[in-house]
Amino acid sequence: MSWTIQSYSTDVEKLLLEESLFFTGNGYIGVRGNLEENNLHPPNTIRGAYVNGFYDDVPISYGEKMYAFPETQQKSLNITDTQTMEIWLGEGEWREKFSLQEGKVISYVRSLYVDKGYTERNIQWQSLSGHEIIINIKRLASFTTKNLFVQCMTLKPISGDIPIQVVSKLDGNVHNFIDPTDPRVGHDGEKRLAITRMEHVDDANYIELQTSKSNLSVATLTDLSVDNSDVSYEYSKDDTSFTTTATFLLTETTKIEKRTFFADSIRYDHLANTLVNLKSELASTSFEKIKNEQQTYLLDFWSRADICIKGDRKLQKAIRFNLFHILQSTGQDGISNIAAKGLSGEGYEGHYFWDTEIYLLPIFIMTDPDVAKKLLLYRYSILSHAKERAIEMGHKQGALFPWRTISGTECSSFFPAGTAQYHISADIAHSYIQYYLATNDLKFMKRAGAEVLIETARLWIDAGHYYDNSFRIDAVTGPDEYTCIVNNNYYTNVMAKQNLQWAVKVCHLLQKSDETFWEAFKERLTITEKELISFKCAAESMYLPIDKDLYINPQDDTFLQKKKWDFTNVPKEHYPLLLHYHPLTIYRYQVCKQADTVLAHLLIEEEQSEKVMKNSFHYYEKITSHDSSLSSCVFSMMAARIGCLEKAYNYFIQSASLDLDNTQGNTKDGLHMANMGGTWMGIVVGFAGMRLKESGLHFRPQLPKQWEEYSFHLQYQNRILRFTVSKADFHIELLKGSPLSIYVWGKEVIVNKYNAISMS
Amino acid sequence: MSWTIQSYSTDVEKLLLEESLFFTGNGYIGVRGNLEENNLHPPNTIRGAYVNGFYDDVPISYGEKMYAFPETQQKSLNITDTQTMEIWLGEGEWREKFSLQEGKVISYVRSLYVDKGYTERNIQWQSLSGHEIIINIKRLASFTTKNLFVQCMTLKPISGDIPIQVVSKLDGNVHNFIDPTDPRVGHDGEKRLAITRMEHVDDANYIELQTSKSNLSVATLTDLSVDNSDVSYEYSKDDTSFTTTATFLLTETTKIEKRTFFADSIRYDHLANTLVNLKSELASTSFEKIKNEQQTYLLDFWSRADICIKGDRKLQKAIRFNLFHILQSTGQDGISNIAAKGLSGEGYEGHYFWDTEIYLLPIFIMTDPDVAKKLLLYRYSILSHAKERAIEMGHKQGALFPWRTISGTECSSFFPAGTAQYHISADIAHSYIQYYLATNDLKFMKRAGAEVLIETARLWIDAGHYYDNSFRIDAVTGPDEYTCIVNNNYYTNVMAKQNLQWAVKVCHLLQKSDETFWEAFKERLTITEKELISFKCAAESMYLPIDKDLYINPQDDTFLQKKKWDFTNVPKEHYPLLLHYHPLTIYRYQVCKQADTVLAHLLIEEEQSEKVMKNSFHYYEKITSHDSSLSSCVFSMMAARIGCLEKAYNYFIQSASLDLDNTQGNTKDGLHMANMGGTWMGIVVGFAGMRLKESGLHFRPQLPKQWEEYSFHLQYQNRILRFTVSKADFHIELLKGSPLSIYVWGKEVIVNKYNAISMS
Repeated sequence: MSWTIQSYSTDVEKLLLEESLFFTGNGYIGVRGNLEENNLHPPNTIRGAYVNGFYDDVPISYGEKMYAFPETQQKSLNITDTQTMEIWLGEGEWREKFSLQEGKVISYVRSLYVDKGYTERNIQWQSLSGHEIIINIKRLASFTTKNLFVQCMTLKPISGDIPIQVVSKLDGNVHNFIDPTDPRVGHDGEKRLAITRMEHVDDANYIELQTSKSNLSVATLTDLSVDNSDVSYEYSKDDTSFTTTATFLLTETTKIEKRTFFADSIRYDHLANTLVNLKSELASTSFEKIKNEQQTYLLDFWSRADICIKGDRKLQKAIRFNLFHILQSTGQDGISNIAAKGLSGEGYEGHYFWDTEIYLLPIFIMTDPDVAKKLLLYRYSILSHAKERAIEMGHKQGALFPWRTISGTECSSFFPAGTAQYHISADIAHSYIQYYLATNDLKFMKRAGAEVLIETARLWIDAGHYYDNSFRIDAVTGPDEYTCIVNNNYYTNVMAKQNLQWAVKVCHLLQKSDETFWEAFKERLTITEKELISFKCAAESMYLPIDKDLYINPQDDTFLQKKKWDFTNVPKEHYPLLLHYHPLTIYRYQVCKQADTVLAHLLIEEEQSEKVMKNSFHYYEKITSHDSSLSSCVFSMMAARIGCLEKAYNYFIQSASLDLDNTQGNTKDGLHMANMGGTWMGIVVGFAGMRLKESGLHFRPQLPKQWEEYSFHLQYQNRILRFTVSKADFHIELLKGSPLSIYVWGKEVIVNKYNAISMS
Repeated sequence: MSWTIQSYSTDVEKLLLEESLFFTGNGYIGVRGNLEENNLHPPNTIRGAYVNGFYDDVPISYGEKMYAFPETQQKSLNITDTQTMEIWLGEGEWREKFSLQEGKVISYVRSLYVDKGYTERNIQWQSLSGHEIIINIKRLASFTTKNLFVQCMTLKPISGDIPIQVVSKLDGNVHNFIDPTDPRVGHDGEKRLAITRMEHVDDANYIELQTSKSNLSVATLTDLSVDNSDVSYEYSKDDTSFTTTATFLLTETTKIEKRTFFADSIRYDHLANTLVNLKSELASTSFEKIKNEQQTYLLDFWSRADICIKGDRKLQKAIRFNLFHILQSTGQDGISNIAAKGLSGEGYEGHYFWDTEIYLLPIFIMTDPDVAKKLLLYRYSILSHAKERAIEMGHKQGALFPWRTISGTECSSFFPAGTAQYHISADIAHSYIQYYLATNDLKFMKRAGAEVLIETARLWIDAGHYYDNSFRIDAVTGPDEYTCIVNNNYYTNVMAKQNLQWAVKVCHLLQKSDETFWEAFKERLTITEKELISFKCAAESMYLPIDKDLYINPQDDTFLQKKKWDFTNVPKEHYPLLLHYHPLTIYRYQVCKQADTVLAHLLIEEEQSEKVMKNSFHYYEKITSHDSSLSSCVFSMMAARIGCLEKAYNYFIQSASLDLDNTQGNTKDGLHMANMGGTWMGIVVGFAGMRLKESGLHFRPQLPKQWEEYSFHLQYQNRILRFTVSKADFHIELLKGSPLSIYVWGKEVIVNKYNAISMS
């Protein structure tokens, strides 16, 4: 059962949470796990469906608007609601609507099958007038036909024949969820989608919606079919919705299928035609077949991405749950990405952050480089925006990527913890470097990577300056949003250093491998030898201070001189601090929302000694509140790195179950994608100690004492490898590709077909 | 003519500027110098009238609202428009309306008589059909009856008898001026005042307006009288305004008087009654009498506040212009204060800032301590808000005064350059100290000052902390808004130090002078010996660093390590920087909007050596853009202090004519009150080098070579003194009170009746 996540709860609060936990998506569309019957009291629900990258431009209000503050932001929109399928039992005045809150729920279970790629609700229910029925509803967002969302319901009569009506709706009257008290959730309640077309064609219902500002359209086509020869259909519509009512006598198990097709004007030209064609193409394809294709797709996914843990079934399940939801949320078309909440909810307005590069890309880089490439291409597609933003932000050159965005422009309205996070440009550069190290894909560096590395390096040259013989970067915010606008944030500086170094390296690579290309590229980007020297000098002179007394890296120039946060006396309910203290209060203290310097050590370990990394870990651990969901996984990995295995395990547990246990308290607003990625990293980068370096693939395999073994697959430079860490040894199997050297605890190992290195 | 400011211009842009320059106020009401005829094309005007401290609560919008961000702000409201008095000449189809843009303006002059307290327009005009007339309009906001605003018009026929209609309006359909592109001006265009009562009583028109959120009312009563026995009046009204039309044949010079009475529900209970009574009380008082009373009031004012400069008439005029407008803008009732733009315009939403304490109070402390007391009492009246704000901002104790406010709660929506300016609490404490030093008014310290000093000192104890044996204050913004959220801003630390020292001192004073009071006070405020020791220790350990190489005070912990702003290559039109660069860009550089450390040296010179002050001045001068109107006067005073007299003079000139020459480019939005105060200070504190110290009154008199002499009066501990600085000597006359010691260039001088100290 480690491939199945189940819930038996019909509690209203729990159901709200499960809307995120059991959401259905395929990287293009995402549909929250709302109830078909849509009749909860109180209606404590966030009913939603989303198309990755589909947004409206929303004006941002400021009390005092300063220069270059973004005037609008993109906002992912809740689109047409297709989920409703009411089940009415009986006739006349005895007619009753199925509800989890009325009648008698004899049994109830909701399941998510991560190996098969669908969710299911199974309910045995008795109505007040005594009808008894078993309801089964499967939901699937097809990975092979990304436009398709299917709800397949079967009804089985228990108490003899039952007159049934299934009332299916398609509703265009939609708006986003708001919570004015939480800065992490939208608070603009305006209606942003207007119906521009509503048609009933070929027994299907079509609604086209248009955004109010961005001029984008999204279309939805839905039909309902009941596998019963005596069924009669009735169609009706009002100003904003269609209703299809199927009436029949339930005498035996009957299948009711509702298919909904989505398309948007970012990706398609003729929305209605596209959907009508898709519908007819799939008309003869049964749900069973769709389900099988889904399973085949998932089989392939798991063969690459699965992580097996022996000895902890709960964790095993949690990891697979996390990986499945990442897959469901990942845009694979080069024009979309992975939102902070994926496609599972509306938190953070559907924006893409650095989360993708630092917490999620490593998975794809090492298990499905083609998807990684698509995610990197998305960043390349917004490079021109990043260059414009750099100019707007007063730089003479370079690319400053937006802290949060959908279509490429900066959407952050709180710059101290937004635009000021310049590190995102280095994070993106870092992921291009990692991709290259894993794939040797020079073609892609020519197409996109080299340009990104050059333009981001140019940013650092302009943003930084020399002082006291070192290169410094002032007035930025590092990953820790509890300490904003500082000078020489260690994380930013060390990442910028790598960025600068690799801008030079990639130029040498291009020059060496393809002189013609290099000459053209150099000319197009007006790269001079002098500029490359300036990159090199800045990198070499980059200021990476060490506190001599504590022998740690200070988070920034003045961090260590501040007062330490009083963890002992601040009550638990005052966390997360950002919801209970003014930013200035938080800035006044040594208190971190998440890993900052510790994350720097995880990503780039060459710049510091073991001792500095260890000391830093222990120092920052004491002052980190982990108010960010991006924190515990990093602490887990670095704990493993410095040999604190028990600590690593405990952080890992926190990270793995963060959404399943709703430990952040806001899973209702969507799943924490970065943390989910952090789970995979927790195993591969954390316990197995994988690092991608120029010298090759490095490991420091360790096994938490709670487990028997764990194993995973990696792709590396056209090879497929399988790694198993057991109490006895570290197995490496070369499943595909030519032999290679890897490094285990620093020692070179030639992997031919099969290697086993003793763990002791 | 150095008491008269005149303009001969009818240019539309100039007229817009003159709405501020020729505004009429009395500390309670302020009426912009808009035109009675109200018919400019294009209508390039900010038509406005204001009541000091009258506001609505306006919601503040944030893209991302963080904890303790103010949800609303107060906004000074443009109230009932009473200015309109159209003059129609002729009859029937030949009827023409007087306009500066039609017919022929034969002569035109606008005058402000700062010695008499009114403005005047004198126009000789010929209509298209040949009527010629001399129009004279005087405007006066009475200092003795603060509710009263009078427009007294005389019409003199030149071309024989002229049929005349004077159309007077009272319009309740008003809203504030908006400019969405300038963060210094309001951008909320919503209508905030609704008419709740409109009545025509006793030939007068009454409009009462109510705010939409703050539940405050403002009432206006106006009447029109024509000194002509054949006049006929016609009254009409529409939904929002009253019109009174006076028709008569103009055969000889005729006086038309319009009186408007204002009252508001903050200060009065029965608005209509109040105004009707006031009107009848003054019914038999002629305009001439009102004008005479005004002159008597001004005579008294100038006898205390005037500064005479011999040898520079333009400057002399500018200084008097500035002082007069300060008087017109100063709330003297203990429940209002001096807004950044006084009562002359809507810039900065009518908010009160530190401007009062640092730039304006010194004038009143030294020339009219009763007014100073009223201004300080206003701060005392909002102490409870400041204490609540401290708690809201995460402090366990103390009073954090709002950076900008009207009714006492924080109105700043951009905290890095708002709430973060913690120094305002020390600035307020400083002004209580200065008041006490000038007056020895212990009674007032018992009533208000001591409590303010204690509560502000408590803030520093909670906001600061000990590190490395020194007391430090992190995450604040100093006066320089181009460098935000820093640690150990020198200005803040040195002002906090004085605050802490004086909290202890005032307790000792109370204890020594009135043991009974002290015991009760101590109990009420729960002051312990331990707390006083903590104040003393923090003050003594206050971190006031000196850069050893530059031998200056660094503005903050990391300021000197930043890159210097490129003044050479940034084009002139990119200033003020805040309108052309993102805050982060500005924060990245050593660039100051205004004096910061230099101001600290001006206010508290004991903490540093002459050399450090000199070096600091020269260092910061090079990197200051003076984008703030609060800058040049401080640089003038400190230049004088360090002996750079020519430099002091040049900065002084800039400061003195800042509004008259519109050098900041935004005088249309209102006059720059703090800078105006800085002019008085430029002479008294700057050139005469006055300092209030515990040891007494200190001077370092100097005379710019461009002048023959300058003189001024000061009040000091129940004495009135007159000081004259000439090329030959420094005269001191004791006009009232007992002999005293003062210090001239550090040497004690006993002042009996008359002293002359040689300037050489």
